[in-house]
Amino acid sequence: MSGIPESGLQLRSEIKSTGELEISLAEVKIAPLAADEVLVRVEASPLNPSDLGLLLGPADLSTLKAETKDGRPSVTASVPPQVLPALKARLDQAMPVGNEGAGVVIATGSDPAAQALMGKTVALLGGAMYAQYRTVRAAEVLPLPAGATAADGASCFVNPLTALGMVETMRAEGHTALVHTAAASNLGQMLNKICLKDGVPLVNIVRSAEQAKILTDLGAKYVVDSTSPNFQAELTDAIEATGATLAFDAIGGGKLASQILTAMETALNRKAGAYSRYGSSTHKQVYIYGGLDLRPSELARNYGMAWGVGGWLLTPFLAKLGAEGAQRLRKRVADELKTTFASHYTAEISLADAVKPEVITAYNRKGTGAKYLINPAKGL
Amino acid sequence: MSGIPESGLQLRSEIKSTGELEISLAEVKIAPLAADEVLVRVEASPLNPSDLGLLLGPADLSTLKAETKDGRPSVTASVPPQVLPALKARLDQAMPVGNEGAGVVIATGSDPAAQALMGKTVALLGGAMYAQYRTVRAAEVLPLPAGATAADGASCFVNPLTALGMVETMRAEGHTALVHTAAASNLGQMLNKICLKDGVPLVNIVRSAEQAKILTDLGAKYVVDSTSPNFQAELTDAIEATGATLAFDAIGGGKLASQILTAMETALNRKAGAYSRYGSSTHKQVYIYGGLDLRPSELARNYGMAWGVGGWLLTPFLAKLGAEGAQRLRKRVADELKTTFASHYTAEISLADAVKPEVITAYNRKGTGAKYLINPAKGL
Repeated sequence: MSGIPESGLQLRSEIKSTGELEISLAEVKIAPLAADEVLVRVEASPLNPSDLGLLLGPADLSTLKAETKDGRPSVTASVPPQVLPALKARLDQAMPVGNEGAGVVIATGSDPAAQALMGKTVALLGGAMYAQYRTVRAAEVLPLPAGATAADGASCFVNPLTALGMVETMRAEGHTALVHTAAASNLGQMLNKICLKDGVPLVNIVRSAEQAKILTDLGAKYVVDSTSPNFQAELTDAIEATGATLAFDAIGGGKLASQILTAMETALNRKAGAYSRYGSSTHKQVYIYGGLDLRPSELARNYGMAWGVGGWLLTPFLAKLGAEGAQRLRKRVADELKTTFASHYTAEISLADAVKPEVITAYNRKGTGAKYLINPAKGL
Repeated sequence: MSGIPESGLQLRSEIKSTGELEISLAEVKIAPLAADEVLVRVEASPLNPSDLGLLLGPADLSTLKAETKDGRPSVTASVPPQVLPALKARLDQAMPVGNEGAGVVIATGSDPAAQALMGKTVALLGGAMYAQYRTVRAAEVLPLPAGATAADGASCFVNPLTALGMVETMRAEGHTALVHTAAASNLGQMLNKICLKDGVPLVNIVRSAEQAKILTDLGAKYVVDSTSPNFQAELTDAIEATGATLAFDAIGGGKLASQILTAMETALNRKAGAYSRYGSSTHKQVYIYGGLDLRPSELARNYGMAWGVGGWLLTPFLAKLGAEGAQRLRKRVADELKTTFASHYTAEISLADAVKPEVITAYNRKGTGAKYLINPAKGL
């Protein structure tokens, strides 16, 4: 229990009821460890889209301004007053950020299971990872395989488990193939590798020829570009060829989810028997798991009655899967960390970099495949 | 087996690839009965919204024209050419119409179970009910209680089982209260009676003060008028009071389904604890079971990630419920035929009336509570 630092820096995001977003670095005391806890020196934590929502909220990023708080760099921006009521539950609270990350265990509680982790590089999911140190229960960390760095393991929960969760959901709900949108993303590339390995037919929807090339280079068989003038027909053909009746959509807004359902229904009806006024009786489902397009989703409902659209989120999926199932998925991630689940980062930044206006603008750009890594051990 | 008529009239709806809808009365041969079959002389069959879709299709009713076919009255109308491709599966087929109805068993097969039905007034679901006679398996009919007429039993499947199916679905999916739209409909009135009897809190959404009165007269506690300037706030309060997280929507198009989900989320967050960036973790569901508004459904998605919208249809629900469950629901309908499940009809018409342009215009008017009954025994 010796050698525990007294305190460490933690990134905090606060939206004030005055309409100001402030991101700052707070000095946080490190409490003595319980018997079953370990202290991790965080060395790598990715900026996932799901982190950016909490970190930046709906702030107007054209108003970003570098500041200093308690002698350390900070940043502010304005939040449009009309969106404040919807944020009521988080107003005036400085919230820690960072879903997942990896680092080295530098102190442990007295339990043997905790002590066994001393010196190990581990990955963890649980929030407040944009910090120099993170105390966590030993049972909650995933020891990385020999030779894996913190950067290798930093993103081994959110994207890998989400991609595996899509395939698990497909099987659990009786589908045999998948459609995925924004498919050239880091997550989309992982999903392609999983589907190729597992023999699951996958229809990839992308928004440019460059994105299509990323996927065909990985070996993807079905890639459809939504900017093509024949998009609907090409999508229908790919869905017919794969038999996909389940889609995961990262975009959310606009007509894409509905276009996918229409294509599924048309593909099903190509082989249909007798006319049914209610359309195909095969259930067609789109799960929206992201919101790259914040506009409303427009559902044409020209696909019979056997259809569903809904939100999909990793945490409730894992809860439903149960501890054993989640452990099975985590093991696969560890086993294939440097292949199927390898992540690539555009840049590694420090906590101080993370509050610089120009760096925020860069990591908030939702370019496909562009992804930043915070290394809180880098020093200010 | 004696006394079986040789043939009978059957209403048929055909959309021709030339773009013409033709509704006519065909003379259909009556085949000898199998051992387990009975022959029903149909005396009452309602014109449900679900029948009108097949009967009239997307024909332009301003072009209705009375005609004669094979010496019997018929009617034609134009179908806009742009919708023909979507109708491909039914083109150039003269389709029988009429989901449900009731009548008297006038002949039976040799099985004792079939013979036991001789002379009984029975209800049945199974299509082709707009006809003088209908051959059906004995096991598929529901003998009506003593004293019930064919008119009493004509609508004892679609609306009663749909209303009961909503409550069953609520229980099966772990909800404890309901929201219903177009709630003053025949079906909505039944749902109110069921919910009052079973102690299920129900939020009724209507579109006028008259409709609200129909329901409050029945004893409905929560009635919200969507034309009110404070609709969203009133809906939220009613949903909070009832704890409803499941809605059945007959309207489909526009923003109503999304407004219901927003109200559910707001109501849930009023008692929420800590801030969750993903919204309430309680699943909120809207099932769309009708299409009174054919425009796209617009989903604002400002209700977290735990939500779903989808189609809901009676037949797959009953299949999922299983034979025993379906039998339990049918028994309740028979037991409460003259109370909970009583239907009221605007007019009783003959098969010949059903193909008259002015009568079609009248029964296709989707006025709340207006409902027509065809009596094929009435003669031409």
